[in-house]
Amino acid sequence: MSERAVLLCSFVTAKKYRMDSGEHIKSALSVTAGIEPPPMVDPASLQRFLARQRKTPMTAAAYVNGILQGNRTILSQAITMVESSLPAHEAVAQEIVSRCLPYAGHSVRIGITGGPGVGKSTFIEALGMYLVTERQRRLAVLAIDPSSERSKGSILGDKTRMEQLSVHPSAFIRPSPSAGSLGGVAKKTREIIVLCEAAGFDTIFVETVGVGQSETSVHAMTDFFLLLMISGAGDELQGIKRGIMEMADLIAINKADGDRVQAAEMTRVQYQNALRLFPPTASQWVPKSLACSSLTGTGIREIWDAVTAYVDQTCANGYFSERRKQQSAYWMYTYINEILKNRFYQHASVRDQFGYYEQQVADSRLSPFAAADRLIDEYLQSMDKS
Amino acid sequence: MSERAVLLCSFVTAKKYRMDSGEHIKSALSVTAGIEPPPMVDPASLQRFLARQRKTPMTAAAYVNGILQGNRTILSQAITMVESSLPAHEAVAQEIVSRCLPYAGHSVRIGITGGPGVGKSTFIEALGMYLVTERQRRLAVLAIDPSSERSKGSILGDKTRMEQLSVHPSAFIRPSPSAGSLGGVAKKTREIIVLCEAAGFDTIFVETVGVGQSETSVHAMTDFFLLLMISGAGDELQGIKRGIMEMADLIAINKADGDRVQAAEMTRVQYQNALRLFPPTASQWVPKSLACSSLTGTGIREIWDAVTAYVDQTCANGYFSERRKQQSAYWMYTYINEILKNRFYQHASVRDQFGYYEQQVADSRLSPFAAADRLIDEYLQSMDKS
Repeated sequence: MSERAVLLCSFVTAKKYRMDSGEHIKSALSVTAGIEPPPMVDPASLQRFLARQRKTPMTAAAYVNGILQGNRTILSQAITMVESSLPAHEAVAQEIVSRCLPYAGHSVRIGITGGPGVGKSTFIEALGMYLVTERQRRLAVLAIDPSSERSKGSILGDKTRMEQLSVHPSAFIRPSPSAGSLGGVAKKTREIIVLCEAAGFDTIFVETVGVGQSETSVHAMTDFFLLLMISGAGDELQGIKRGIMEMADLIAINKADGDRVQAAEMTRVQYQNALRLFPPTASQWVPKSLACSSLTGTGIREIWDAVTAYVDQTCANGYFSERRKQQSAYWMYTYINEILKNRFYQHASVRDQFGYYEQQVADSRLSPFAAADRLIDEYLQSMDKS
Repeated sequence: MSERAVLLCSFVTAKKYRMDSGEHIKSALSVTAGIEPPPMVDPASLQRFLARQRKTPMTAAAYVNGILQGNRTILSQAITMVESSLPAHEAVAQEIVSRCLPYAGHSVRIGITGGPGVGKSTFIEALGMYLVTERQRRLAVLAIDPSSERSKGSILGDKTRMEQLSVHPSAFIRPSPSAGSLGGVAKKTREIIVLCEAAGFDTIFVETVGVGQSETSVHAMTDFFLLLMISGAGDELQGIKRGIMEMADLIAINKADGDRVQAAEMTRVQYQNALRLFPPTASQWVPKSLACSSLTGTGIREIWDAVTAYVDQTCANGYFSERRKQQSAYWMYTYINEILKNRFYQHASVRDQFGYYEQQVADSRLSPFAAADRLIDEYLQSMDKS
């Protein structure tokens, strides 16, 4: 392949993936080495060449090789495999994840949640840019966003609000898997974290919208849980589900700028007092409340200092690694449970009968336990027949 | 059966069940009607007679008949059937519960939780005595207390601390099922609620110790959730699991008496402020914080007024009945899930392999999802073979 062809096809792909073409050239060379280039380098034939390239299935080993070299194109493609629901892709994805596993884990995983209107995207842009420019971190931003909870693709809108971060060479922003159950999305997000860590990202943000069930999942796959709030009485809290506050390691009061500085400080103190009333955490970390501004940068450094203080403290007392182990066990149990439930609820006899028994229970004609027993009996009987 | 024999055997049984013997005579007459009495009424033959009586299995219909008449002996025996894990008992128990279901539901179900040392038993004694004497309520006190969370039988100790309540004719105190998984205990407690309601109890307390998983279960089977605390900084809160505070409809600061009155009031204000920061509840009820004393009776009436205000408000806005329906559905789903999980984890192939896969995951040699997939595959294969 001629140098010019490499440069051109690098440019096309780099543009597509918003990458700097320098980095892409290396990856293009490593992937296409030994493959005959197209005779012409006009755009049309280049596109045909690229299309052919895409159709050649890569082996799991090739994906893993690319990921370990920090190749973002290949990382993106591997993530697409993980997100795919095609059985052929699933098998390859599982192999990629398994092979990346020994190289994963060396990162700080931070869950970030907050209701609509708290400025989550601009906050991630501000904190993220601070990390990649001032702290030399390599940052991957992921999102848990099951389709049932939010309209599809809206996180792509978020991405455009992370203008600087989305083009920074040390940052990688990936919209969430666009469809599927919460369990499925959580599984995929957790596997994507493995791939990103294997690709050398040492800081992972997992973003969620704070109004649904997904916070528990994010909490169970991150080391540190950051709840983003703003000041102004209670109206804007309505988006936050009960129970989330107690999961927070840090509550950040955003938009502490202009004429909102004082209000933010008051809100910060209120939450600090409330946090003191909560029982101690297993980590022995005392959750903090800090005010910040994504606009002026106030408090951004302090937030990161709190994260590093948390990591230092929990690494010292052994909680950090213990929690990671517990989380792995949690996902094993959770996923087993999800599979068992899916098999049950998708079974023909259950689908036929469920509504009837549900109604019997709603009408107090049958206890929920008796209804459950009968459904299980019918399920097991029809399994035996099949 | 001679009147004297009835009186004597009533006395023996009444003593055993801490009942007033007057009420028991009626029940004894209704149960033993038509059965030949023993020729002698000396204690030994009476005991043999009673033992024979116990061995004669009652039909579910007879149990239900006794329960609907408010017969406490039969209610207690029916509860014992529900708690039993013998298959023969289970079948009868299911029939009893099903037949009682149409008569159940007309009560206020109140979950009461609090860590060790907050004076839960004396609080229940104080609030309970107020209800049975001043408000003409009929009160059943149950407890969720899985054996894994607390030493067996300790709640019997609690019962002795409810001296007045335990002998009051309008109150019925039942220790928790003494063994079993949380799911099993929760199922049994919920069925016992049905029996107590069918027996005419219009107020149900479900007590739990506040340090484990059982609060979520209690919250999911009661209409109103009361968290009992005491003042004194934060030490005594350590027993309370995180997340419980957000479930509370009312936080009562107990022991507001003597030189603790001021401290209790300060603690009350702190919790009231903290509760305001929580997002609104689905019931539209604004959780309250009240100080009280089981010793002087301060605040006991106000606590009950809060419960009735809650019931009025949620009955008016439809939440009360809607929540009961949701709870029934919740228990149907939860119980199905529990059965599916039990079948899986108790299966021979899973029991053999689980430790191995758990270790693989702990050592990061296998992802939790891959491990789950393999265990499920082996489970399904060995099901096919059997």
